[in-house]
Amino acid sequence: MTRPDPRLFKGFRDVFADDLVVKQWMIERVRGVYERYGYIPLETPALEFVDCLGKNLPEQDTPEGGIFAFRNPDLAQDESGPDSWLALRYDLTAPLARLCAQYANLSRPFRRYQIGPVWRYEKPGIGRFREFTQFDFDAVGVSGPAADAEVACIMCDALQALDFEPGDFVIRVNNRKVLLGVLASAGIDDGDLGDPRSKPGTVLRAIDKLDRLGLPGVVELLGPGREDETGDFTEGAHLDDAQIERVRAFLSIADRDRASVCAQLASLVGDSPVGRAGIDELTGINGVLDALGYESDRIIFDPTVVRGLGYYTGPVFEGVLTKEIRDAKGRVRTFGSVYGGGRYDGLIERFTGERVPATGASVGLDRLLEAIKLIRGTSRTATADVLIVNFDDSMLTRYMTLAQSFRDADIATEVYLGKGNMKKQLKYADRLGVPFAVIIGSEEFERGTAQVKNLWLGAKLSAEMDSREKWAKQPAQEEVPIDGLVAYVRDALARQTR
Amino acid sequence: MTRPDPRLFKGFRDVFADDLVVKQWMIERVRGVYERYGYIPLETPALEFVDCLGKNLPEQDTPEGGIFAFRNPDLAQDESGPDSWLALRYDLTAPLARLCAQYANLSRPFRRYQIGPVWRYEKPGIGRFREFTQFDFDAVGVSGPAADAEVACIMCDALQALDFEPGDFVIRVNNRKVLLGVLASAGIDDGDLGDPRSKPGTVLRAIDKLDRLGLPGVVELLGPGREDETGDFTEGAHLDDAQIERVRAFLSIADRDRASVCAQLASLVGDSPVGRAGIDELTGINGVLDALGYESDRIIFDPTVVRGLGYYTGPVFEGVLTKEIRDAKGRVRTFGSVYGGGRYDGLIERFTGERVPATGASVGLDRLLEAIKLIRGTSRTATADVLIVNFDDSMLTRYMTLAQSFRDADIATEVYLGKGNMKKQLKYADRLGVPFAVIIGSEEFERGTAQVKNLWLGAKLSAEMDSREKWAKQPAQEEVPIDGLVAYVRDALARQTR
Repeated sequence: MTRPDPRLFKGFRDVFADDLVVKQWMIERVRGVYERYGYIPLETPALEFVDCLGKNLPEQDTPEGGIFAFRNPDLAQDESGPDSWLALRYDLTAPLARLCAQYANLSRPFRRYQIGPVWRYEKPGIGRFREFTQFDFDAVGVSGPAADAEVACIMCDALQALDFEPGDFVIRVNNRKVLLGVLASAGIDDGDLGDPRSKPGTVLRAIDKLDRLGLPGVVELLGPGREDETGDFTEGAHLDDAQIERVRAFLSIADRDRASVCAQLASLVGDSPVGRAGIDELTGINGVLDALGYESDRIIFDPTVVRGLGYYTGPVFEGVLTKEIRDAKGRVRTFGSVYGGGRYDGLIERFTGERVPATGASVGLDRLLEAIKLIRGTSRTATADVLIVNFDDSMLTRYMTLAQSFRDADIATEVYLGKGNMKKQLKYADRLGVPFAVIIGSEEFERGTAQVKNLWLGAKLSAEMDSREKWAKQPAQEEVPIDGLVAYVRDALARQTR
Repeated sequence: MTRPDPRLFKGFRDVFADDLVVKQWMIERVRGVYERYGYIPLETPALEFVDCLGKNLPEQDTPEGGIFAFRNPDLAQDESGPDSWLALRYDLTAPLARLCAQYANLSRPFRRYQIGPVWRYEKPGIGRFREFTQFDFDAVGVSGPAADAEVACIMCDALQALDFEPGDFVIRVNNRKVLLGVLASAGIDDGDLGDPRSKPGTVLRAIDKLDRLGLPGVVELLGPGREDETGDFTEGAHLDDAQIERVRAFLSIADRDRASVCAQLASLVGDSPVGRAGIDELTGINGVLDALGYESDRIIFDPTVVRGLGYYTGPVFEGVLTKEIRDAKGRVRTFGSVYGGGRYDGLIERFTGERVPATGASVGLDRLLEAIKLIRGTSRTATADVLIVNFDDSMLTRYMTLAQSFRDADIATEVYLGKGNMKKQLKYADRLGVPFAVIIGSEEFERGTAQVKNLWLGAKLSAEMDSREKWAKQPAQEEVPIDGLVAYVRDALARQTR
């Protein structure tokens, strides 16, 4: 028998404690915000029928529609029909739409949050995985600017709950109806923004590449098309010069004053009804944001935001980090969009024929986690506060009894159960980041005392070799009576900072 | 275009807030226990190469090996080799073994917990899903009875953290080495327990069906075989009468005194070295459990426990609920095993050739959740404490401002953003289980007062129609000044019980 090679599928990864300690904190903070607005939890399965998920991913870099699909194993291989194909969900919004169509007796509005992995069959790259975690909140059965304004507020609150301050991030809001209006007023009204084969859909996809290609690249895609560095040619939208000029003017509005953006948009949509409706919605959103004190240091109107997903029908939202974040080598890192959302009034209609208004947003936890880690520097991996060194298996039961007395006082404690001498055990504790090691040999048990090693302090002191005086005053190791150990460590933990 | 039918794949389900509020609480409690012992978090991907996962599922009811497998989409359909097949993980232990083999620089011992969905391609049934949540803790690189005793202690602590008391549950411990010893002393030593085609493997699978078939059914499977109700015949292990008698004696030891079980086992394994080693391990585990105060009201030794998974090599653990739990119709419900685990010293060796000792257990959250829900009765679905009724969209901004002042005081608040009159809105709050509704029309805004409706109290009072006096004293609706609203609700929430 050959031994399997331990490995992972391309684009997949293991996530370790240094990340997960932060991720867990992020989840709790964001959940706190969603629940403060009254959103309730929901879980849907990882696997769905392909026809229920629909095809709403942006096309770029997505072979076979961007999803991991496979045949229904309950059916014979040659059976065909709507049940033949299953796929891993590519987001949490499509399953929500399926669910809202499926259960007639759901409360309306239905406001839920959901956290979970999603899978996309894309080319993997640096920081771009095929499995990643989304944390969504959505309100189904709500229409009107107040509901959309609330989405933007929640996005702000969630980022602020993660210790980002105004100025560290910005929520960019746009309305696809305004883009439709701009195009209509320029004579481009043959098709839907969600249809990638239509002219408006081609324009939308071109604008969606603004971050990557810059305005000149987008202008090429609005015209005949664009050849990239590798020689691949992307067919353009074939707008004429006047039309391109109008879209370029639209994209060039850069103004932190939300009311002023609305005024400038008004001149671009002319008398297009859909365009004017879009501006009215933005104006309504602006009114609510102003009243609630969400100023343009946190939420701006930005016509360049379109979002790639096919299903948005009105306001769209994007959260980006604007704080300068540097990696360990001092290079500035950009993180792009960390939060995305919008209104999707047609997604349930796909199933039922009944138009149901819905709006919400999704935070990409993995990308944000990377940013937070760089801002914080190192993070603690250990969950244990104390490692009890094991000198000799004959004393193991005593070590374990002592560990229970720590745990009873809510001090997380591990008894070293591997093989290895004291040096190896202390190195293990050090590497995990356990703050205290308790050392008791048979002599110490007889005397009723223990050595407590403060590993964090020890690491600090050995880093500051010049501060011998400090060392003398705050020794990294102390002798403590065994019956006073729990109280000693509890007090030391309360004083402890890394 | 035809409309898709909103539906789920067989054996999959949506999980709603009434379950998830409990599940979230369970996760926090169990995580608290795992972390108190110093276990650190880990996440591995949902998808793995099939050869990395290995085939360790019990065979019954598992078409195609019990896993959801599909071809690697990165390869051509006709390419074959170890990379050709991917599968959704069927547990969290197999990925852990892959990971420990893959990363040479992991700390040893490596003690991690992991929570996540796993998928099994089995026949779905009542309470039996193809996607379910496991919450595992495992220690890799630890050998000896103390490590196994700790596993049993953690299982106890976790169930007690979920408010089960001694007597409501029991942890059943056995050792596969003892079974091997019993078989060897009866002359059955040709093969491995983990190999389903060997005689010992067939005996193990027969014993694993004890709960379902009872002792007479198992005895048939130890002999020539058994025909079930549908006429299907399962080939037996073909033991002779003396051998069957010995296994039957082994299975019939039912004794809460752990030391006494060890003594009885000793007479059954004779001088089989593996059997004696198994008893020594159980004796060691018993010593640690006694010293730590985990008596036989919580942890017993039970030879009938074998666990179905192929990879266990020594001690095995099973947590079962013994509390009488009745469903809404008063029928007693049985939940079978809710916690399972054991020692698996050969799982990493599969990859590396190096034997690495490892032990741990996995709690099935979904089955436990069902039990907890039945014990508790109803649970609250809403996360909001307050629903602000929306009389008129013209006042929406004022409602939303008021909602922010509630949220600033940590009172979760929802402004009703759907369509519908006051009656419909109050019904919505009632159904979700929101405790308070705030009602302010334009007149109330002018007067500076609000009506606060106590929906929980209202429901109670309308249930007790005779208590008119109470009603008068504790009216379910009160008029409160708007500037005192937050304080009023905060105080009322503190007093409130459902």
